[in-house]
Amino acid sequence: MNDILSFASDYMEGAHPAILNRLLETNMEKTPGYGFDAYSEAAREKIRNACQAPEADVFFLVGGTQTNATVIDALLQSFQGVIAARTGHISSHEAGAIESGGHKVLELEHEDGKITAGQIARCVDAWHQDANRDHMVMPGMVYISQPTEYGTIYSLEELEAISSVCRRSDIPLYMDGARLAYALACPANDVSLPGIARLCDAFYIGGTKCGALFGEAVVFPRHDTVPHFFTIVKQHGALLAKGRIAGIQFDTLFTDGLYYEIGRNAINAADRIRAALEKKGYRLAFQTPTNQIFVMLDEKQRRDLSDKVEMGFWENTDDGHTIMRIATSWATKSEDAERLISCL
Amino acid sequence: MNDILSFASDYMEGAHPAILNRLLETNMEKTPGYGFDAYSEAAREKIRNACQAPEADVFFLVGGTQTNATVIDALLQSFQGVIAARTGHISSHEAGAIESGGHKVLELEHEDGKITAGQIARCVDAWHQDANRDHMVMPGMVYISQPTEYGTIYSLEELEAISSVCRRSDIPLYMDGARLAYALACPANDVSLPGIARLCDAFYIGGTKCGALFGEAVVFPRHDTVPHFFTIVKQHGALLAKGRIAGIQFDTLFTDGLYYEIGRNAINAADRIRAALEKKGYRLAFQTPTNQIFVMLDEKQRRDLSDKVEMGFWENTDDGHTIMRIATSWATKSEDAERLISCL
Amino acid sequence: MNDILSFASDYMEGAHPAILNRLLETNMEKTPGYGFDAYSEAAREKIRNACQAPEADVFFLVGGTQTNATVIDALLQSFQGVIAARTGHISSHEAGAIESGGHKVLELEHEDGKITAGQIARCVDAWHQDANRDHMVMPGMVYISQPTEYGTIYSLEELEAISSVCRRSDIPLYMDGARLAYALACPANDVSLPGIARLCDAFYIGGTKCGALFGEAVVFPRHDTVPHFFTIVKQHGALLAKGRIAGIQFDTLFTDGLYYEIGRNAINAADRIRAALEKKGYRLAFQTPTNQIFVMLDEKQRRDLSDKVEMGFWENTDDGHTIMRIATSWATKSEDAERLISCL
Amino acid sequence: MNDILSFASDYMEGAHPAILNRLLETNMEKTPGYGFDAYSEAAREKIRNACQAPEADVFFLVGGTQTNATVIDALLQSFQGVIAARTGHISSHEAGAIESGGHKVLELEHEDGKITAGQIARCVDAWHQDANRDHMVMPGMVYISQPTEYGTIYSLEELEAISSVCRRSDIPLYMDGARLAYALACPANDVSLPGIARLCDAFYIGGTKCGALFGEAVVFPRHDTVPHFFTIVKQHGALLAKGRIAGIQFDTLFTDGLYYEIGRNAINAADRIRAALEKKGYRLAFQTPTNQIFVMLDEKQRRDLSDKVEMGFWENTDDGHTIMRIATSWATKSEDAERLISCL
Repeated sequence: MNDILSFASDYMEGAHPAILNRLLETNMEKTPGYGFDAYSEAAREKIRNACQAPEADVFFLVGGTQTNATVIDALLQSFQGVIAARTGHISSHEAGAIESGGHKVLELEHEDGKITAGQIARCVDAWHQDANRDHMVMPGMVYISQPTEYGTIYSLEELEAISSVCRRSDIPLYMDGARLAYALACPANDVSLPGIARLCDAFYIGGTKCGALFGEAVVFPRHDTVPHFFTIVKQHGALLAKGRIAGIQFDTLFTDGLYYEIGRNAINAADRIRAALEKKGYRLAFQTPTNQIFVMLDEKQRRDLSDKVEMGFWENTDDGHTIMRIATSWATKSEDAERLISCL
Repeated sequence: MNDILSFASDYMEGAHPAILNRLLETNMEKTPGYGFDAYSEAAREKIRNACQAPEADVFFLVGGTQTNATVIDALLQSFQGVIAARTGHISSHEAGAIESGGHKVLELEHEDGKITAGQIARCVDAWHQDANRDHMVMPGMVYISQPTEYGTIYSLEELEAISSVCRRSDIPLYMDGARLAYALACPANDVSLPGIARLCDAFYIGGTKCGALFGEAVVFPRHDTVPHFFTIVKQHGALLAKGRIAGIQFDTLFTDGLYYEIGRNAINAADRIRAALEKKGYRLAFQTPTNQIFVMLDEKQRRDLSDKVEMGFWENTDDGHTIMRIATSWATKSEDAERLISCL
Repeated sequence: MNDILSFASDYMEGAHPAILNRLLETNMEKTPGYGFDAYSEAAREKIRNACQAPEADVFFLVGGTQTNATVIDALLQSFQGVIAARTGHISSHEAGAIESGGHKVLELEHEDGKITAGQIARCVDAWHQDANRDHMVMPGMVYISQPTEYGTIYSLEELEAISSVCRRSDIPLYMDGARLAYALACPANDVSLPGIARLCDAFYIGGTKCGALFGEAVVFPRHDTVPHFFTIVKQHGALLAKGRIAGIQFDTLFTDGLYYEIGRNAINAADRIRAALEKKGYRLAFQTPTNQIFVMLDEKQRRDLSDKVEMGFWENTDDGHTIMRIATSWATKSEDAERLISCL
Repeated sequence: MNDILSFASDYMEGAHPAILNRLLETNMEKTPGYGFDAYSEAAREKIRNACQAPEADVFFLVGGTQTNATVIDALLQSFQGVIAARTGHISSHEAGAIESGGHKVLELEHEDGKITAGQIARCVDAWHQDANRDHMVMPGMVYISQPTEYGTIYSLEELEAISSVCRRSDIPLYMDGARLAYALACPANDVSLPGIARLCDAFYIGGTKCGALFGEAVVFPRHDTVPHFFTIVKQHGALLAKGRIAGIQFDTLFTDGLYYEIGRNAINAADRIRAALEKKGYRLAFQTPTNQIFVMLDEKQRRDLSDKVEMGFWENTDDGHTIMRIATSWATKSEDAERLISCL
């Protein structure tokens, strides 16, 4: 199991050792359930500090689809839909969880996984200006992810523009941060946690793909954005009985800058692999600064490389190429990156 | 945190040490996600063996409410409801998760948390005989839990009678085994895992309250009882990206009889406490053979005991008493049981 | 079809002739759709006047189950349930429409179909006082019907008490008035339309069972109680394209006191039948002042009477009797009531 | 109200006089409710005959959005979505009713409102071939409308190709026939009711826009396609208490060819208007053979024409034109068509 060189995804290992150690140390302590323990409270406080959002409500859920479904359901009224890129995770890879909750995903065309303030404004305006709008799904919030499904990131300028449209239109902005550590650590990134907290109405800081066994930290920067969110979480089956297991993980991730360190490890490896790919003449499907590299391979390249390294399949192109994903993570070892480079 | 003598619930600690050790040993291995790893497969096979159900489909979900909502939604058609005790977890303490999925809980009166084959038959027959049945919610399945919310257990005879009514009525029987280890380990229990697999159409083996960090193992004894259950799990936000974290836990629980050992530890402690309570003249609210003891205290008793030991609040009775819950678990130490007994 | 003497229900004929005539007269006029026509507006205004609720929002829907599901869904938040009598129409005879919309019906025991302010207060208080309330369905509104499923009516005193509990608890009170005409016309009734508008947050004035082809008029006495209710109606499939068909019917029902006249015709007939039943020694299952009479028959009585008159089956009692329903309506002819009486 | 020349929609009047007369004649007859009356049964039998589908199950619902939501919910499993044109009524103008029922609309690009067998095959195949398909919404049925939202019609060849893809893929084909009379009556149409019954698994024959006060007749050509559909209808709030009101209307529509006559009246008028528009140099937005004409007007044309005749607003084009809809119907008088033509 350990011998294959694998860059197939960023959730192939367990957890960052610091997390497991902390779980071990605290294992036999008795704490109250459902997140009312001291570890969860400490983690919440550290996240509030990291976000410079002292009033924030913070909740720990288990996984990404669950978090998206729960937050979106909590923010929307029954007759509203959520604006998202057609390639957004909620649009394409959550088995209809949003619709299962009763809401339409109002899909916009994307560019490299991103949507723009202009598109959102046009979507909202079109609804307002349509004489039949009362027969239509009302745009009720905006969903973006940072990084996107395509590994790209929004710049601060782009995020400010989107936030501004949302506030002008009085609809909340929600950011899916399943891989947020890998955006935060990019040299090219200028969107910090305090920036996100200032510009979004809700977001989550991903744990599952960023070094935790599981877990996503939902942040509502303004207190009581969603009254009774605890019960909504319970109703969605997303409430952990042993809430501290998530709390301890996020407490660890936000101690001594571990979350940033995790991001940097992945980005350093990805940057080296990217440089090597370009040097050796490989073609990238899109330019990404994060931990996911999308390389376009012809049939021979794909066969040769697949023999030596496991990658994630992304899609076949119309002209007979295959786009494969190379993902680094907190767990990527320097020597494995070198081994991959030597296979190119 | 460690000094208080606490018997408030059975999910106050982390996980059985054997589980944490196994997570630690396997931590840096790379495996595929979503339960397609070798640990999950090994766990599934061990559960099939333990249930003597070689064709069983086994899935690992995260928590109890989530599992109930997902399985019930998968088993029911849109116009059907689920029969359950009024005191059932799905009826009372899941924040309406079943209704949120579109289904009515058809509540029956309980005796000590249990419902009977006769009640179920009358409920189903009443629907069949009602001239207005097509305007009513059709009974579509039966939900029971073992042990029940009140810590009582169904005997094999009772379970066979219930199963027989369900099969005659062509509706599936589902058992919530959130605390199943604590039923299996009771001297009074005659319902084994193979018996459950033979008599139920779906059930889950609880991990969260029986020694795991989290996790519940859903078992459909007959293959393909629910086609596309994987997607249904995903749609409910119940699919773990790092599925192996659940798989490793259940693999450990079903190695060398750990699940039974966990049960026995709790029952031994509970039996000693129960005997001491009775000896000292305390009144039990209901007779339970499992790890939950419901003791009825007058105001003075409650105050005296609460000073020394943390218990779970259950309910106030009309005559001014309080029912408190004492719960033992896999983690209850012999000396803590003694300390509790010495406080009585 | 016309020869059988039938008192099986109050929706066996078409519509009051005045309604059909009005539909005929206006048939070829061209009007805008969806309730934006002048007839619907006139009907809304007449209803506002009849309710002494000049700010009321009024909407015309098609049927009772649809109206209940739409209004309840509009008034509740996702994690809330609706308090109702166990015998309420939404609890028992709407095929789970409320649960299909995601909400639990919090069922209270009834007395002759009615629930009390005290019961409601205890239900709401129990939730507030329960330490586990955040894991439970929050009582979010109260549903009553006037008359009830059992043909009984709330007195003004009872309704004021219920309304007072609701307002103190900050939850809306909704009245299902499927047969409201038959309550309004009872000599014993002291709850007028203005009283209902003053004490309820939403209610509907039944058309289907009170002389219309179909149609229920939803009244929210306070403007904008539910923003975007039009879209919610559309989403529930409850929006009539030719909205005027409902508008014309309610315009007619609220012209020259027709709605009251319809009620009186039914009550006059019912009162005469009731008196005759009592005189001849028949036993009534419950005392009802409205258009539904529930008579308890032994086997011989049932057979004899069923040969001569069609009644509605209600239920079998444990002691071998049958409760049959005799329903009068706007369409009951005086001579048919006499024929029925002569059969007793 | 009668003086304006209006072609704004096809649901501006009441009902065809033959329908009102029949309602009047039968008004005081007593019949059972919920569609169990002789008129509804007669209507069902006439529809079976017209469709040459002797085993068909036929149900009468009230409106189009309701019918679509009910049928689609009945045909799909919880994890499936419905394929439809992006411009389909369910995609755009039903306020999210399909998503409210838990299902995603899998939107395909359209050409003049239509989708092709090839597109459907590619959509289904893409799901089958996607390694992540179990994380995605499964295509579970196909929705088309005849005529489409753009007034175009599918040819028999196109419908056979679509049906063939559906059957090969084992997913049902459902046709929304809100304006079916206006397709059936087109000279260019070669898709008959028996053809639809042969090629579709479910469809509805529109009443509301084709001469009835309201009502849509759902046809499942094969018996028991959806067991318990009656209860599903009830749960969706779509069951008429006085079912005969719908039954009488469809009985009348399918007596002496009235449904076809209604179609022909509209098409004759539309054809004359279309010819006049073309003759006078107006530009049509798309070629439609049915009762809806979409004319592209520049600002001056729009102003001039709007003064004289009411049309429906369709959309603004990017180059400053407006597309307006002219709709004829069963109620369009020959002289009104002439008056319109004289305004051009």
